[in-house]
Formats: sequence, C-alpha cells, structure tokens
Amino acid sequence: MLVVMRAQATEQDIAGVCEKIQSLGFRPHVMPGAERTAIGITGNHGPVPAAEFEDLPGVAEAIPVSKPYKLVSREVKPDNTVVRIAGVAVGGAELALCAGPCSVENREQILASARAVKASGGQLLRGGAYKPRTSPYAFQGLGEEGLKYLAEAREETGLGVVTEAIDVETFDLVEEYADCIQIGARNMQNFSLLRRAGRARKPVLLKRGMSSTLDEFLMAAEYILSEGNYQVILCERGVRTFADHTRNTLDLSVVPAVQSLSHLPIIVDPSHGTGKRDKVHPMALAAVAAGASGLIVEVHPNPDRALSDGFQSLYPEQFQELAEECRAVADLLRKRRVSAEARLAPALS
Amino acid sequence: MLVVMRAQATEQDIAGVCEKIQSLGFRPHVMPGAERTAIGITGNHGPVPAAEFEDLPGVAEAIPVSKPYKLVSREVKPDNTVVRIAGVAVGGAELALCAGPCSVENREQILASARAVKASGGQLLRGGAYKPRTSPYAFQGLGEEGLKYLAEAREETGLGVVTEAIDVETFDLVEEYADCIQIGARNMQNFSLLRRAGRARKPVLLKRGMSSTLDEFLMAAEYILSEGNYQVILCERGVRTFADHTRNTLDLSVVPAVQSLSHLPIIVDPSHGTGKRDKVHPMALAAVAAGASGLIVEVHPNPDRALSDGFQSLYPEQFQELAEECRAVADLLRKRRVSAEARLAPALS
Amino acid sequence: MLVVMRAQATEQDIAGVCEKIQSLGFRPHVMPGAERTAIGITGNHGPVPAAEFEDLPGVAEAIPVSKPYKLVSREVKPDNTVVRIAGVAVGGAELALCAGPCSVENREQILASARAVKASGGQLLRGGAYKPRTSPYAFQGLGEEGLKYLAEAREETGLGVVTEAIDVETFDLVEEYADCIQIGARNMQNFSLLRRAGRARKPVLLKRGMSSTLDEFLMAAEYILSEGNYQVILCERGVRTFADHTRNTLDLSVVPAVQSLSHLPIIVDPSHGTGKRDKVHPMALAAVAAGASGLIVEVHPNPDRALSDGFQSLYPEQFQELAEECRAVADLLRKRRVSAEARLAPALS
Amino acid sequence: MLVVMRAQATEQDIAGVCEKIQSLGFRPHVMPGAERTAIGITGNHGPVPAAEFEDLPGVAEAIPVSKPYKLVSREVKPDNTVVRIAGVAVGGAELALCAGPCSVENREQILASARAVKASGGQLLRGGAYKPRTSPYAFQGLGEEGLKYLAEAREETGLGVVTEAIDVETFDLVEEYADCIQIGARNMQNFSLLRRAGRARKPVLLKRGMSSTLDEFLMAAEYILSEGNYQVILCERGVRTFADHTRNTLDLSVVPAVQSLSHLPIIVDPSHGTGKRDKVHPMALAAVAAGASGLIVEVHPNPDRALSDGFQSLYPEQFQELAEECRAVADLLRKRRVSAEARLAPALS
Repeated sequence: MLVVMRAQATEQDIAGVCEKIQSLGFRPHVMPGAERTAIGITGNHGPVPAAEFEDLPGVAEAIPVSKPYKLVSREVKPDNTVVRIAGVAVGGAELALCAGPCSVENREQILASARAVKASGGQLLRGGAYKPRTSPYAFQGLGEEGLKYLAEAREETGLGVVTEAIDVETFDLVEEYADCIQIGARNMQNFSLLRRAGRARKPVLLKRGMSSTLDEFLMAAEYILSEGNYQVILCERGVRTFADHTRNTLDLSVVPAVQSLSHLPIIVDPSHGTGKRDKVHPMALAAVAAGASGLIVEVHPNPDRALSDGFQSLYPEQFQELAEECRAVADLLRKRRVSAEARLAPALS
Repeated sequence: MLVVMRAQATEQDIAGVCEKIQSLGFRPHVMPGAERTAIGITGNHGPVPAAEFEDLPGVAEAIPVSKPYKLVSREVKPDNTVVRIAGVAVGGAELALCAGPCSVENREQILASARAVKASGGQLLRGGAYKPRTSPYAFQGLGEEGLKYLAEAREETGLGVVTEAIDVETFDLVEEYADCIQIGARNMQNFSLLRRAGRARKPVLLKRGMSSTLDEFLMAAEYILSEGNYQVILCERGVRTFADHTRNTLDLSVVPAVQSLSHLPIIVDPSHGTGKRDKVHPMALAAVAAGASGLIVEVHPNPDRALSDGFQSLYPEQFQELAEECRAVADLLRKRRVSAEARLAPALS
Repeated sequence: MLVVMRAQATEQDIAGVCEKIQSLGFRPHVMPGAERTAIGITGNHGPVPAAEFEDLPGVAEAIPVSKPYKLVSREVKPDNTVVRIAGVAVGGAELALCAGPCSVENREQILASARAVKASGGQLLRGGAYKPRTSPYAFQGLGEEGLKYLAEAREETGLGVVTEAIDVETFDLVEEYADCIQIGARNMQNFSLLRRAGRARKPVLLKRGMSSTLDEFLMAAEYILSEGNYQVILCERGVRTFADHTRNTLDLSVVPAVQSLSHLPIIVDPSHGTGKRDKVHPMALAAVAAGASGLIVEVHPNPDRALSDGFQSLYPEQFQELAEECRAVADLLRKRRVSAEARLAPALS
Repeated sequence: MLVVMRAQATEQDIAGVCEKIQSLGFRPHVMPGAERTAIGITGNHGPVPAAEFEDLPGVAEAIPVSKPYKLVSREVKPDNTVVRIAGVAVGGAELALCAGPCSVENREQILASARAVKASGGQLLRGGAYKPRTSPYAFQGLGEEGLKYLAEAREETGLGVVTEAIDVETFDLVEEYADCIQIGARNMQNFSLLRRAGRARKPVLLKRGMSSTLDEFLMAAEYILSEGNYQVILCERGVRTFADHTRNTLDLSVVPAVQSLSHLPIIVDPSHGTGKRDKVHPMALAAVAAGASGLIVEVHPNPDRALSDGFQSLYPEQFQELAEECRAVADLLRKRRVSAEARLAPALS
C-alpha cells in the first residue's frame, strides 16, 4: 500500500497518516518527491484497507502495490532516484564514471591509480581495502590501512571513493572513510549486511549476485531501503552461465528491466562482467547504449603487476578512450531524447 | 595448415599447391583475398609438414592453424568478410538492418510488413515460410506459398529476402526464392543441414544455438565453409540461463569475441534475444555499440494479431525510431574510429 | 480432448467416434489400453465440445486435456507404456540395460564390444554408424558399413541394436538395420527428423536436448506420437549449466517429473551425463534409484584407443559390476513396492 | 605442502616440524590420522622446499599439494573424515538422517516435529531459528526463543540439533544451543561467517551455493578448516539452471566428485534440491545410491500450515517410508562393497 499526499499537504497531514499507519501495527516510510510526498506501508501481511486512509486530511489517494518489493518500486515512486556521491550525480542526465584498481595494494599504487583515473576523465575512485577472496590464502586486502590510502587519494584528486564492506564487523570503518559503500555480488543475499547498509548514512552500491534473478536483486535493495537508506545504486556485473568465452555473462537486458520496475539508478561493471581486458571497451559502450546510468571499471597503472584481476584491468590510456567514447554515445542518446520530448511537448500542452 | 601465396602468385601456382594438397590425401580451400590468395588445408589428422609447401612456386609461407576451426578463423583470413545480400553489404562500414514479421501469414500481411520495413529504413526483409515450432499442432508456416509472397514483396519494395530453411527436403525451394538462407538456433548443430547450406549458392545467416559455446558456434559455421560456401553471417539471438526477466539472455559479449577470432560478420537479434517488445530498442542500441554489423528485428504491421511472437514484435513506427537511433550510434562510433586511424596513420608511415 | 471408450465398446463404436472426429476437421488417435480404448483428438485450435461425443455409442466420457502435449500425456493414457526392442521390454518391471561403444569403428571392435556387453549382462547394443560431430573434420562414422557390422553383431550375440539416425536422407537405411532408432540431443528439435521418426515402424529413443525444458522434451516426443509412432523411449543425458566438474549436469529429477506427466518410459545415459569414467557407476545407480526404466552406457573393449568418447567409456568388467549393482537396487525397490501394494490391497478390496 | 610423519613419530618430532614451519613464516596444521599424523602448511605464496623437512626426525615424506585447497584435499588426508553430531556419525558406514521443519514456528510445532522425526527413524533434528529470507517483510525466525525450543526438543527426544547461523552477531547464541551449525547456500561465500565457523567448537554443515563450482565449494570449506575446525560436512542442495520443472537442479554428480577430491563427508538436501514434495523421495534414493553419507529433509507435522516451504515438506509418514527405503539401499550397497573387499583381500595379502 502506498499513500500519496496532495501537493498542498502539510507536515501535520503527513504526521497524521504516519500515526494512523502505526496505530494499525504497520510501519510508515515517508518518501518526499519533487511535487508530492508519498508514504509507503510495510509490515502488513495481506491487504491494508485503502478507505482508512483516503479520508484523512491531505491524502490524494491510497494505491495498492502489486509487487513483493515496495519501496524500490516505480509504482511507489515514479520519478528516477538520483544518488549523489561526493558531488557526482548517479542516475541523472550525465553518465557517471567510477574507475580504479581491484584492490588497494599500497600507497603508491592507489595514488597513481587515482591520478590516472582523474586525468582520464573518471569521477569516482574504486578500490577494495577488504577483499572477498575465493581462497583463504589469497591477498585479503590492506584493511584500514587501505581505507586511509583511499582517503589520501581523495584528498589529492577530489575523486569520491567507492569501496566494499564485506561484513558488519568492519562496516563502521568503511562507512567512515567511503563516499559510497559497495556490497559485493557474493554478499547480495547477506541480509544482515544489507540491514546494516540500510542504517548507513552513505550511499550504497549493490552488485547483483552471480545467479540472482531480477526479483531477488530488487528484494535485496528493498532490504536496504526498508531500514531507511534510500540512496541505493544497483550494479549489473555478469551472471553465471554455461558460456565460457567470458568469465561471466554480462546480462545487459537487466538495465532496461530494472528501469521499468524501479526508480533506482543502475550502472554496469564491464570488467567483472567479461573478465577480459579486450572485451571491456565494447561492453562498456553497450552498457551505456542500453541505458546504464554509469560504469564501474577496473583500471590499474600497471595491470601486469596487479595482485588481483590484472587480466581484466585496463591501462589508463585505454580507460581514457573508453570514457570519451562512452560519453559521446551517452550525449548522442540524451540529445535525441530531449529533442524527441521537445517535439512531443506542444502536442501534449 | 594455411598456405599463403605471394601477391604475384599466378593461377598456375595456386593450382600447383592444390594438386600437392590433394596428392597428400587432403582437401584444398582456395580463399582469394584483397591482396593475396590463401589456401586452407582440411582433412588432415595431425600436423601437415610445412616444408612440403614452402618451396613450391608462388608460396609466401605455410602457417599452422592452432584452432579447431580453420576456414572461419582470423588466423587464416585476417581481413573482415563482407557478405552481400541483394546489394546490401553485411560486415562493411554501414549497419545492415533486416526486419519483418516472425512468419509469413498471408499475402496482405507480408506486403504491408515489407512496405513498413522499407518506409522505416530497413534494407532486408525477414519472414518465415517454414517455421520450427515447439508444438506439432502450432502453425508451421505457409511453405512455398509463403516464399512466393516474399518474392512478391521483394519485387514491389526492392528489399532482399532473408528466410529460414528447416530441412534438406525443402532447402532447394528456399534457396530458389531467398536472397539469404537462415539456419535457426534449433538447427545450429543439424550437421546435414549445415552441409547442404555449404553447397548453396546464396549467403547463409547462422543463428547461435540456445546453449552453444563460442567454439561450437564457430565450428557450425566451419561446416558451411568447409563445403565451399564462404558467405556466412553469424547471429547472436540469446542463450538459455536461469534469468527469467527476459525470454533468453542476450549475450552481447559474443560479438567482440567472434570478431577477434573470426573474419565472419556477426549481427544480433534483439527480438528473440529478449522476447519483450519494450526491451528490443535498448538492446538493439547495445548490440550496435558492442560492434554488431547489423540487426535482425521482428516488426509486424499489427503485432496484436500476429500468429507467432506478437509480444516481441515492434510496431513499424517503433522500428523506424530504432533504425534511426542505431544508425546514429553506428555513425558516431565509425567516425571516431576513422579519425583515430587518421591520427595514427602518419606515425605508422 | 480425449474420448474414453467403455470396456465393452466394439470396433464399430470406435470407428464411429473416429468418423465424428474427422467430420469436425480434426484427427483421431486410437490408443488401445489394457482395459479400454481411448481416442485422442489433435488438430483443434481451441476447445472441442465434449457433448458431441458423450452421446455416441460406446463412449464412457470425453475429457479435456489441459497440457500442450496430448498423446504423451498421462491424462490421455494413465497406464505406463512398455516399449519392446528385440524382445527386451523398456518401461516394464525389469531394468533395461543398453551398452556399447560411442561409434562403430570397425568390424572387430563392434563384435568384441557386443560380446563383452552380452557377457556382462547387457541386453541391447549401442553404437553409432552416423555420428553428429562438432567438427566437420572429425570422424563422422562408417555409415552403412557400420550398420552392417551392427547387424552382424546382433546375429552373433542376439542383442538388439540401438543406433542413431542423424537426418532424413539416411533414415531409411538406419530404420532397416536398427531395432531402435536414436534421435540425439542435438536433433531433439529437428522437427523434420522427428516427423520422419513418427512414421518409422521401429521404436525411437529420444534424447533430451542440452538446454531443453521438460515441456520442450515432451513436445518433441509429441511430434513423434502425432505421426502415429507410439513406441517412444525418453532419455536424460545431462544438460548445460555453469558447473564444470562434469561434462554436462545430469538432471535426474527429470525422471520422476516425466513419470508423473507422461506414460512414456524414461532411461538415463550416465556416460554423456557426466563425461567422466569414474562418475558413470555412481550416477547409474542414482538413476536407477530415481526410478529410471533403464540405462544406456558407453562401454568399449579398449577405451584408450576409442576414436571418440574414450574418456567416458567403461571397461567391460566395470560395466559388469555396474549392471549387477544396478539390477540389485532395482530389484530391491521393486520388491518393496510390490509388498507395499500387497499390504494395501486387502484394505482396498 | 604436506609433511607426512612416520607411524612411530613422537609428539616431539611433530612439535619440531611445527617449529620449523613457523620459523619459515608459515602456518602448521596438525592432522592426526588413524595410522600416522600429517602436518599441512598454509600461508605460503609459491612452493615450499621439501628438502627442508625430509631430514627432520620422524618425517616420512613431504608432499607438494597441487590443488588450491589444501586441508580439505584427499592428497593431504586420504582417509574419510567422520564427523560426530550428538553421537551420530556422518561419513561412516551408516546413513545419517536429519529431518525437521524449515523453520521453528512455535513450541508445539517443533516438539511435534521432533517426535515425528524420532518416531520415523530420523537421528538429527533440523529447524531454523534464524531464517535468511528473500523479502525483508517475510517471517525471519524466532531467534533465541526458537533455539530454546530446539533445545527442549533435543531434551525430550535425544535428537541432535542442526540449525543455521546467518551472521557473526548471532553466531555465539547458535553455537551455544546447536549440535551442528549450518551455513546456508546464500552464505557459502560469506567469508567472515566462514572464518567464525572455523573458530567454532561445534561441527559445521556447509551448503553449496546456488551457482557454486566444485572448486569454490571446497575453497569455502577450506576457509573453515584453515581456522582450525576440521569437523565440516558438505551438503548439495541444488543449483540454478534454466530447468523449470524443479525449484533447483539437484546436481548429484557432485557427490562422487567431492568424494574423489576431499576426505570430508557430503550429504544431500532433496527438499531444497527439488522444491516439490513428490520429487523428494525419488531424489533422496538417488542421492543415497550416488554415495551420499546422509540426507537432510524437510518434514512438517502439518505441511499445509507451514510458515515457509510447506510445499516441499514431507508428511511424517512419507519421511518414515523414505528413511526405510534409503536405509535399505544404503545397506545393500554397503554389503556389496564389504563382500567385494573381502573377495579382493586374500589376493592383496
């Protein structure tokens, strides 16, 4: 159930609806929109009587929500959500580009990476200080030391920092240093971690699990929103299939599929999505053409010496070319849409 | 093994090499290139001695081929193959657009479709006269009657006709009427049909099987080339995975993967690749951005009344928009490549 | 729609119903059962009026069939179908064991194989004379020569012969020599071949395609039955997944799934289903325990010298052990079922 | 690297090898075996010099380990590991049967379940107090209250308790009440949770992730062993594929595959593995025939009223029949193996 307030509804009207919801044993979620406020109801098993709300002051209508996910649903919030990370808008008119190494290896490496990303046109810096690794004997990341180097790189370059939190124990530290907290594919259904992310005061980048359906992906995001954090960016990074010419199969059709069901922005990771350096550029272009709001790309100043994922990391000059070309495609498509809307506008007015 | 002739090699030199190959019990495949002729050797179990060929007149070098596929391999033919269908180049500088209904339903429907495709900027007309259907009780196509209507549509609009052959028995008929013969996904490993296609005098459009690996896809094409027909276009149309938000999972990474291993052109079918009308446009754009040489799209003058696949067929005006936007993206990327090459050229000369 | 006749219905009654069906433009399929005859109706688009049949002489009832497949459905024929191949019942009380090499390589090899299969307790001999191979350059089978060797092996050992038909062109030859005609996984949706198999006078072994759903599998069998051949055995042989520890993923749950929806017998191929010699025995046992009516196993007198699939072929002594152990499990389960039914019988009478 | 001690090696010899390992900066893992002790070395990047160990007192040999997993590998420990849960051996001669409801719903339900499991021949009780649920709005389990009811059920019936830990925060509580701690499929690569399980003093049941390869599955177990907990049971519960006739595709071939690579016991969950009540019995039998050391089955006193997974839960009388039949198959196969070994023994002596 979603209670939509009139444009003129007062703060008091909104509080009144929330009280009513609580009195029925449910939980209200106030979602201010550009023109009007909506209030989601969760915690109900079975339908909530619409009539109970439609007579309250300031209420325009009460809409039943048909999907298992509610707060992430476009039924509940028709306008696109734009998430801001250190001044960069993700989900708005411009393409957002995040780049950097798989993991923070040492101070020099991450500083060199950040400078390269900045120089090549990237806006956000990625790099893992805590790494989920298949082997317990593999490099597990530098931990807080890595977070500090990331902060230093931000200081020097101005790039916002996107870095992964792998457990609740170290979440506070990551939240302290990061501008955006990544939840990795292996943790997409680590529900305790999702709840913790829902209580964070920073945006969250949620990667799709390796065999996650679209519904499960949106439900994972719903966990975060249901705790009060509405700043969530979704990320497609490839799924597991029989195909063996790439490390994963990048499922770009999930981009328009998410966009029709949810107001949350979705970006694409063509590095993990292909696992091969020479496939990153064409698939990055494809992601942008499919409508992705941004890209997250592995770039390393010296890929051949990377401690992890070197084979799928771009050289800085490759990233620069990718960034230019992706922006050109995004601009072309945006201009076409704007002029199409302009053509249609007089007819509608 | 591939025997590469010198640029000045004569017809007699080429014949000499072929004789030598046959005398060893193998089979020669003469492949004329823009600057020089190459001769592939198949039928050998184990290595062929290079020295036997390198001393023959006109021979530049004899190269062992490392892949299981030979004639489709870029090792054997570095230049892109451009396939011409009724005057339309597939694999060249321009994007090739093929569109039309799933099946030919009657004379009026296919003529209306052809006019709509022509008017919206399509160059080739698709439409099945023989339909492989999951159920024996479903509409199986009009057969030769359908082929005649397709020919009539070509006559009126000038569009080349792409239509499917489903068995050896009816192949002659299809070959007679079609400008390009499609082998469907379910028949990708119907080796008798592939061999027959290899003896056709028309270009062949080979669709990737639903769970085909890249190697199997290229080996299926190799069947066609090994019989002497080098006019083969590959087509990605989605693969089977756990994902349920689309009918199939469109694996666009196979586009650059094919292009690095093979000289054959590859196009994309976003209609079967998604199975949903509203996903066709974004995935068509993505395919073009990933580097596809063309698209094959289901368009129907009245999708809601289509006998098959109506839910994934575009309205003509949707196709027109798709065609314009895809061409704009293709143009943008082509111009960038051309100017990049121009920048690099002086340095290389 | 299925018209069920009374136990006392005469031949004339049955003919009357068939005439009625034909007069409506549909097609009757007479299916004699142990106690009563049923007549399936196909060719209808939309529902057939039951009332038109229920008043005809000899008719017990007219039942609508809810599934897309009709003749293969248990709704239409509740009793298990038992298919007889050269005196061996498949789908009855006893486990049916078919074994032999991947392909017929020469006279000595297939005779030695047949003797070994016979000596180890096999009842049917497998071996391909026509081989669908991924590569056009791989050994494609001996053709008719291979069929003749198979016939000779049958002559000597008494084993019925199961061998594959790969196209309509060579089907007549295969039908002439074989006791049971195999349709391979790659041809499961080669509908022209299925129709030809439906007109054969020999039983057909239909293998599940590599990415076939259960519905598609049953619809492929429906193609064969719809042409009048009701002697069809289904075969699970593994499907394509991300898992890489076996060549295919053997999906044994399809055995009980088929059995609840269809009356056709289903057997399992643990050799292709695993692709590894040391996994064949445990998965054969698992297949029998899951309820499979039989097994088809690759056995070679000298696996290390096999021209194809040697790595997954058993040594004859391994097959003997497999056969004994599988029969022991099948016997145990059959006896438990028989005694459970005996316990229940008095209560029911 | 694995250092194998002589049968007569003393405690002092073992301590000497451990010191040597530590002095090189690595980590020793002492694994006492039936006849001799082995010491695994982890923490090394690159090969460890064998010669450094082979001259130490009590050392028989130093063996390089070729797999990425070490402690779980059969190379390191050839004998099967037998894990004891509340007196029940898992991985020994007898089949281990664990059963119970998906989740603990209330005191009466879990007590009734435990009595039914006990009466039907189960040895261990399953039931979740903490439930990982796709939706944040679904029933999440009773938490500690549920654990207390499980303890009460154990008290009354004597059944050991297997229950899931979903995060590090609540792990202590679960460890306190459980006899065996389950790590669910969604957490198979929650490495922080695996490390915590590696420090537990209770056995761990590790379920395979939905798209986990065999290597990843064994590496997840390696995380637990690498922290010092060698009491790990693996569990196959179905993987994600395109197949839609079952909820998941039960990949039974992983049972013999695990057994050839690892000494750890593996059991099967046919309830999640099929997601359909009528498929549980045949797939349980198949799992036992494939060699599984046990089963974990959902049983509910009143499946139609279950708060979760009712559609795949067995009625108690169904479980009783399953237990009897599975034990009969397991006994049959064990006796055949024992008598086969007896036949071979004289020849070997």
